[in-house]
Amino acid sequence: MKRAVVLLSGGLDSTTTFALARDQGFEVHALTVAYGQRHRAELDAAQRVAQVYGAASHQVVKVPLDAFGGSALTSKIEVPKHRASEERSADIPITYVPARNTILLALALGFAESIGAFDIFLGVNAVDYSGYPDCRPEFVAAFEELAAVATKAGVEGKRFRIHAPLIELSKAEIVRLGLSLGVDYSLTHSCYDPLPGGRACGECDSCLIRAEAFAELGLADPALAHTGHG
Amino acid sequence: MKRAVVLLSGGLDSTTTFALARDQGFEVHALTVAYGQRHRAELDAAQRVAQVYGAASHQVVKVPLDAFGGSALTSKIEVPKHRASEERSADIPITYVPARNTILLALALGFAESIGAFDIFLGVNAVDYSGYPDCRPEFVAAFEELAAVATKAGVEGKRFRIHAPLIELSKAEIVRLGLSLGVDYSLTHSCYDPLPGGRACGECDSCLIRAEAFAELGLADPALAHTGHG
Repeated sequence: MKRAVVLLSGGLDSTTTFALARDQGFEVHALTVAYGQRHRAELDAAQRVAQVYGAASHQVVKVPLDAFGGSALTSKIEVPKHRASEERSADIPITYVPARNTILLALALGFAESIGAFDIFLGVNAVDYSGYPDCRPEFVAAFEELAAVATKAGVEGKRFRIHAPLIELSKAEIVRLGLSLGVDYSLTHSCYDPLPGGRACGECDSCLIRAEAFAELGLADPALAHTGHG
Repeated sequence: MKRAVVLLSGGLDSTTTFALARDQGFEVHALTVAYGQRHRAELDAAQRVAQVYGAASHQVVKVPLDAFGGSALTSKIEVPKHRASEERSADIPITYVPARNTILLALALGFAESIGAFDIFLGVNAVDYSGYPDCRPEFVAAFEELAAVATKAGVEGKRFRIHAPLIELSKAEIVRLGLSLGVDYSLTHSCYDPLPGGRACGECDSCLIRAEAFAELGLADPALAHTGHG
């Protein structure tokens, strides 16, 4: 059974990606990077998902990126709420964490090389959130080139593949794909600014994008059931 | 004054690189990544160097790469001792840490983008240690390409420069350069397997390479004075 490393935040995208990697026959080794989020809800979700869906191993690595500042996700900058779709896609959002996916993939590459895995799965998604530079196909391609020259395995002729299977899908297409693979989205957590107790706020960009995706399919987001919007 | 991020391990190469960046007129922000080394001696050296040579700021980020295993530097694999020069350069050494420099540069990129620095200095050195894949010019070039597509600043037209000023120098040339910049190498620490108290062992590849470099210049390595070889 071929090994794969799946970057697992515990959100909707990475959980779908995990299910897809397993469906493709990989032995899945999950890697969760705790990069100084202000809340534990994401980590808890990642642990639930890894357990329920049978990760062969699950590494949680703490990387205190909040020390660098510069993002609403790791600092005390306010997370924007109730933004309309056009407003959300106008600029690179302040929830951008500088070089986040570069750091995540670098760690995944180190983990992969250590365990002899040459397939790395990343749940980035370009369509709904074109604002993040490190969610684009050119970023993924550039990282794959880097991996070929950066590693012992690469020098010895092994090729690391960076899989970003959701990159061209809309959020509704991702949910449809996940449901077809049996994903239980009540296990997942995507909210940028959770309520006390860790439940989704229903108001930040991330919650709104999920809610709209489920609505497109005529469904309610199970992670928002408690808000009355789910 | 332009800002630069310098990756500072506290060893001979990164300390020389720090001195060079400052000499080139940069305001130097040092970044030390504690990646699960088995000893604190390197971190202590990095802190001494940052203080003595006037870093504008010094971030120490802990990244527990030892969880991944796969290297004598982060695991319990024995560090080789007393190896002759040919033996040292024959293979990729077991002190190789999977994707280490990719991870270091990814963190430096995040730090640099956060503080508005577009110059990143890395003290890699290809000649003495051709065994490490991520110490080669093609690695540095590939990372620079990645940085251009991975970041908000890159998308907005800023170009990150990865400076690897020592990459073509021999260890003796590095020492000569550092001495011309006034570097006090007694502050630095390069040993892979330090003695109790943190002093250099004088026997691992890293100590032997330093000792030979100083010897080529008719000098003794001040970090080895206590061994009788310095």
